[in-house]
Amino acid sequence: MRYPNNIIKENSMCLKNYKNRGMSLESMLNDSNKYYLEYDIAVIYKKPTPIKVLETKYKTGNKQEITKAFYEEKSTTDYNGIYKGIYIDFEAKETNNISMFPISNIHRHQIKHMEKIINHGGISFVIIKFNRLDKIYLLPSKILINLIKDNKKHIKIDYFKEKGYLIENKIKPKLDYLKIVDKLI
Amino acid sequence: MRYPNNIIKENSMCLKNYKNRGMSLESMLNDSNKYYLEYDIAVIYKKPTPIKVLETKYKTGNKQEITKAFYEEKSTTDYNGIYKGIYIDFEAKETNNISMFPISNIHRHQIKHMEKIINHGGISFVIIKFNRLDKIYLLPSKILINLIKDNKKHIKIDYFKEKGYLIENKIKPKLDYLKIVDKLI
Repeated sequence: MRYPNNIIKENSMCLKNYKNRGMSLESMLNDSNKYYLEYDIAVIYKKPTPIKVLETKYKTGNKQEITKAFYEEKSTTDYNGIYKGIYIDFEAKETNNISMFPISNIHRHQIKHMEKIINHGGISFVIIKFNRLDKIYLLPSKILINLIKDNKKHIKIDYFKEKGYLIENKIKPKLDYLKIVDKLI
Repeated sequence: MRYPNNIIKENSMCLKNYKNRGMSLESMLNDSNKYYLEYDIAVIYKKPTPIKVLETKYKTGNKQEITKAFYEEKSTTDYNGIYKGIYIDFEAKETNNISMFPISNIHRHQIKHMEKIINHGGISFVIIKFNRLDKIYLLPSKILINLIKDNKKHIKIDYFKEKGYLIENKIKPKLDYLKIVDKLI
């Protein structure tokens, strides 16, 4: 699923100039993690979406089909793994907002999880894709947590420019976010 | 789900003497991980089961119901997280065999994943529950990998006694496996 529905229609004429515009952040990250794994740089995976299965039936060939299930709320973040011996944990979000990221997009229990990861010696951050600006920023969770403690409801794009780290769009890997993690270690 | 279907019927009269017999390994580990989280000892979770969703429909209240889906093969292991700043990764298996554990119960790509975790500085192991012996052992993945390299197909119970670590059944946490991880660090 390289070009999902959230492709920005009005800009489709310019796609060739913005090679990652319209590609979902998840696709870009999965692509990058695959690259890191292949080149033995890191072992980082997206956690599967938690689903509560209520009914199943058996198909021919004894294959079990799920016929009734519901999505459950995530208790942690989207991605985790190991890099340079360090536990890595992060959440990835997209926004169509052009001037700010609403903090409410990240759940309270996810923030608590990030705090725990930091306290136990792991590296925790968020990756935010501003779809309409074609910019992707990494922001350490520590900064996000402090903003929440200061009762902030949004993070302005200028704040990302100042305190966050712009992640370059490359070919291989698509998003070299571990280059930024190197600065946080 | 404290006493699932795999309860050993013929021993139900003796359950009071074997407090964890019949309790699934997954329940015991989830219970232990909850304890570790509560007491801020470690942050370790079971990864959700990967499911490929093919069809959904919207119910009243805009709740999305999954109406067709299939289980997918796990690409990694069951559990991961952080303890004392170290990345922890393990697989948990039950067997009704009383004399040995068949190595084929652990998939080839899971073994590769374990090798990668070790190479990147994480702690990797398997936890095996011998249901009919009421014994649970932790075995470092390094040992398992070496047995596979020696073309071994099974691991005898005596081998677990010699090279593995018996995990005590306790009340809180049910399975204090991190006490054994302390010896591996």
